[in-house]
Amino acid sequence: MELFFDTMNYDFDVVIIGAGGAGMAAAIYTGRYELKTVIFTKDIGGQASTTEKIDNYPGFESIGGVELMQKFQKHVEKSGAEFRFEWVKEVKKIDAEGNGFKITTDAGQYISRVVIVASGMKHKHLNVPGEHTFEGHGVAYCATCDAPFYKNKVAAVVGGGNSALEAVEFLSRVATKVYGIVWDQEYQGEPALIKTVMNSDRVEKIYNAETLEIKGDTKVERLKYKDRTSGEEKEIALDGVFIEIGWQADTEWLGDLVETNKWGEIIVSDKAETKTPGLYAAGDLTNIFTKQLVSSAGQGVLAAIREIQFIREGK
Amino acid sequence: MELFFDTMNYDFDVVIIGAGGAGMAAAIYTGRYELKTVIFTKDIGGQASTTEKIDNYPGFESIGGVELMQKFQKHVEKSGAEFRFEWVKEVKKIDAEGNGFKITTDAGQYISRVVIVASGMKHKHLNVPGEHTFEGHGVAYCATCDAPFYKNKVAAVVGGGNSALEAVEFLSRVATKVYGIVWDQEYQGEPALIKTVMNSDRVEKIYNAETLEIKGDTKVERLKYKDRTSGEEKEIALDGVFIEIGWQADTEWLGDLVETNKWGEIIVSDKAETKTPGLYAAGDLTNIFTKQLVSSAGQGVLAAIREIQFIREGK
Repeated sequence: MELFFDTMNYDFDVVIIGAGGAGMAAAIYTGRYELKTVIFTKDIGGQASTTEKIDNYPGFESIGGVELMQKFQKHVEKSGAEFRFEWVKEVKKIDAEGNGFKITTDAGQYISRVVIVASGMKHKHLNVPGEHTFEGHGVAYCATCDAPFYKNKVAAVVGGGNSALEAVEFLSRVATKVYGIVWDQEYQGEPALIKTVMNSDRVEKIYNAETLEIKGDTKVERLKYKDRTSGEEKEIALDGVFIEIGWQADTEWLGDLVETNKWGEIIVSDKAETKTPGLYAAGDLTNIFTKQLVSSAGQGVLAAIREIQFIREGK
Repeated sequence: MELFFDTMNYDFDVVIIGAGGAGMAAAIYTGRYELKTVIFTKDIGGQASTTEKIDNYPGFESIGGVELMQKFQKHVEKSGAEFRFEWVKEVKKIDAEGNGFKITTDAGQYISRVVIVASGMKHKHLNVPGEHTFEGHGVAYCATCDAPFYKNKVAAVVGGGNSALEAVEFLSRVATKVYGIVWDQEYQGEPALIKTVMNSDRVEKIYNAETLEIKGDTKVERLKYKDRTSGEEKEIALDGVFIEIGWQADTEWLGDLVETNKWGEIIVSDKAETKTPGLYAAGDLTNIFTKQLVSSAGQGVLAAIREIQFIREGK
């Protein structure tokens, strides 16, 4: 088996799963190193491309999320002749085989020397009318990225945990008013954060509230919720709604190849290594400390460079 | 004592030392967070600004190092952070007074709640006779800056890695002849770069060579080296010597505040924490696995976000 595998032709040197910031940054490096690289993906840009405006990717003072991710895409395409995007709906399975991996997608099976998993995470959605319509036009999922756009405006944060608290706190520094819309009767999270949010006179807390609809014409104008105690339905006027009810790393399909934490994030080393040699992970679906585009891209590059070493060592 | 400190006015919330990719990325985040942020620095851009052309910072297919770092600078300025061109001599934890740091520069003393050290690395020296004497008079450490001075002249590049290859490649476009002086029996670096250097008829490679002395009258005229195979000593006539043998983290001045590895790099956690609470480090002077602009910038952002948490917890 070893012998056969050592002399076989791989379909690719590097398979990258996901075309967000992490996956594309990795591809720029592997392409420039003349490794035969493919990105398996459903779409281009990952989380970043769902963001209306990005003001915190260093070098671009302000740029549309889609526009920036298109720049990444062109950059990847320029990085190596051997590069290609393979449009797949789903990567179903990765199996370790000899010194490589067999990747099963809905489009076929491929053999690669190494794999970088960078397929991101999914924000949990409220699944209420208006949420999808106004995504990127007043409905946002990342306060760190988008809060500064609400300077002197009014915004709501839906959610009762730590991310929601952080969003409320950040927004309260820039917005004139912040509604904290909480399903339960109180916030759950870091005591210091709760204290700050409780002490802010810019924050109006609405507890026991079920968000029913996000309304507007071309952009968000109102949020409708039900008071779960009285059953009464109410509307508030605002400019933006941050939905901070958690997110999910979609990593179960990787089975025993990776170790995950309680949030389903892949635990990686400081070189983006998983527990399986030759299998790397980068970006939002790892246990990286913060989910930010430049940090994910930076981690993608760590994965690429470690993997180049790994291939070289295997020679 | 506690009380005094809690009510005292800090000069800054965040002091960032160094205006390379890591420091400026951090400042973009802390500035946007409306923390009072200053970058103490000698110059703008760090290592990246000494690079002629950057083709691997995701989003910019190809851009001058200085130009990209100017974009970072403008981005920082827009975020609200301030630059001060002062050289930091010392950072001290103010234990007695609570949670802060005293920063001494060549221009004054400042108190800050947190500090992010991102002052990068410095060039390694050969430490041979003539090197120091002729620095700036034929001995150089930055091909991007100085290669154009060698138009129609003869230069040597000492070193066998990627920076050396880049220097050789650049010089071979302007100089009539470039000597590549390599300690080992071959170059180690990007295949594409090696290929270019191998194919250039202006480049003469001298392998297994130990540089012994740089000689001249008022400026560089000759380089003396030993053939490590035969033991023979030889001299070549030239106008300039570029020394590209790597970098060194300059961290000794931080004393006991940080733990370092055998290369002098600051050991940081996956949240860019040093061993001293409130003191963070990011970029080339840390033990980050690879010294790449986007990875350093990503780490700067980890430091910024962790430090925002830290300030909040301390309230």
